Amino acid sequence: MPRKIALVGVGKIAVDQHIPALNASSEWELSAAVSRNTVVDGVPNFTDMDEMLKAHPEVEVVSLCMPPVPRFAYAQAAIAAGRHVMLEKPPGATLSEVHTLADLATKAGLTLYATWHSREAAFVKAAKAWLVGKTIKSFTVTWHEDVRKWHPNQDWVFEAGGMGVFDPGINALSIVTEILPDPIHLKSSVLDFPENRDTPISAQLDFYHPHGGTVTADMNWDHSGDDVWQIEAVTDAGVLTLKNGGGVLLIDGVVQTGAEDGLSGEYPNLYANMARLVADAASDVDLRPMLHVSDALTLGKRNVVKAFDW
Amino acid sequence: MPRKIALVGVGKIAVDQHIPALNASSEWELSAAVSRNTVVDGVPNFTDMDEMLKAHPEVEVVSLCMPPVPRFAYAQAAIAAGRHVMLEKPPGATLSEVHTLADLATKAGLTLYATWHSREAAFVKAAKAWLVGKTIKSFTVTWHEDVRKWHPNQDWVFEAGGMGVFDPGINALSIVTEILPDPIHLKSSVLDFPENRDTPISAQLDFYHPHGGTVTADMNWDHSGDDVWQIEAVTDAGVLTLKNGGGVLLIDGVVQTGAEDGLSGEYPNLYANMARLVADAASDVDLRPMLHVSDALTLGKRNVVKAFDW
Repeated sequence: MPRKIALVGVGKIAVDQHIPALNASSEWELSAAVSRNTVVDGVPNFTDMDEMLKAHPEVEVVSLCMPPVPRFAYAQAAIAAGRHVMLEKPPGATLSEVHTLADLATKAGLTLYATWHSREAAFVKAAKAWLVGKTIKSFTVTWHEDVRKWHPNQDWVFEAGGMGVFDPGINALSIVTEILPDPIHLKSSVLDFPENRDTPISAQLDFYHPHGGTVTADMNWDHSGDDVWQIEAVTDAGVLTLKNGGGVLLIDGVVQTGAEDGLSGEYPNLYANMARLVADAASDVDLRPMLHVSDALTLGKRNVVKAFDW
Repeated sequence: MPRKIALVGVGKIAVDQHIPALNASSEWELSAAVSRNTVVDGVPNFTDMDEMLKAHPEVEVVSLCMPPVPRFAYAQAAIAAGRHVMLEKPPGATLSEVHTLADLATKAGLTLYATWHSREAAFVKAAKAWLVGKTIKSFTVTWHEDVRKWHPNQDWVFEAGGMGVFDPGINALSIVTEILPDPIHLKSSVLDFPENRDTPISAQLDFYHPHGGTVTADMNWDHSGDDVWQIEAVTDAGVLTLKNGGGVLLIDGVVQTGAEDGLSGEYPNLYANMARLVADAASDVDLRPMLHVSDALTLGKRNVVKAFDW
């Protein structure tokens, strides 16, 4: 029997990804939605999460899809009401609040899952497996996209806590921390802040690598043309290129096939992971991608660049 | 028999605090010093840590007192050489590197101690004990000092990674996270960056408190007059005022006495803690003060203010 789940915060990402993933899953039944602005067809809709939780005690899991700043209060209330919680990325506006949520979930015996959807792209597991045992010479992340295309008029992405270019950049860092066999930490970063915004629109990161590899990331949110979501690893035994955010893998320039067989997509995988975590009474809260973003904002040299308008 | 220890990075804090604390302790014997600029009387002096470690295999513990940015490489090398490590605050330039060090120390079976000297001030334990079971109405941190007095001409404190006003502010946060019974996280922060510096000279922090208390911090590094290092907690059962960075405690305006009896000072306490940790084969790496600083720099609204010169 499918587990009953409610979506809270029905914006673009919920409509584009969460609802189709849930509708296609035999493990889940979307049983309620909470949103101030949007109605989901075919399920009871609420504007207040507490009312939904009272009206639907059969809802075991709450999936939170609103922006990070308001998310803590919802997560805390859902845990207090005895529900398992799944968090869109990034898992919160602050590291401290996610630690608090993890402690609350542990004490309540509930599952908390801080999701990283990019880790579920088709070729991430294959890339991780290929890198095992190889010596990294260079590891180059290029993450360029157009914020106007992915977040049209969503001013919150540039507000304090919205993370700016690290909103997509944290996806790259979630893949990096998954596939790179060695622990890294930031050496230096340069951040470009539009003069009318609180968060950077581009970032250059330079990491320390324990075996002397060059590990860098070039993130840009003011990019025209096709999205570039690429990681290239030059090793002692060949070159790995992960393109399309993990959807395409090349080894020494040759496109790899097969690893994507049977995979159903990033968000279907996240919900399959959540079903397994709930069944196992486990949690998964890996904060490494967010730690690197915090480190970049802590260490960063700040340039002021021209104003950004939509 | 005292344990043999080496100091690495002999600057103002080592001369003012570490050396007197070690000289006064029967648990420790200062056996070597490493510094490019300073010579410590009465012990072998080196300019290179690796040479010191080779020449002094009897040195069990290395205490690192240099600024945070170069510290990781020394800590990693000391752990690789099988020595226990003690870190001045903040424990690193990035959160990620401290996680890496903690993992390395655990794997090597060595002690890592991320020290917070302000937690060892005379009345911090008494303040913590008094707050247990009380309801916080407001919790107000005021941390004002003159950077020209405490870090004369030390440009690194304003460089990326030097933390700016959070260099003293993290002392306040180390006390807050020790004595406040409830987990907090940042709601918002406002940071003032001098136009010629990479880190803030003042900061206003506003925290979420789980029971609705008002928790704020006002940090200023461009303060003339006496240092103000104060925490005031208004509770349902009276007012606690911790002054002088934890050295003086008032309850409802009445100066408390006695708690300081037998205490020997912040740095002697840190070294007593380290001796106990090594004896117990334990580590102590509490990153909460640094998490709050990273959160403040991640979430902060940035104002540009007038240039700072010494």
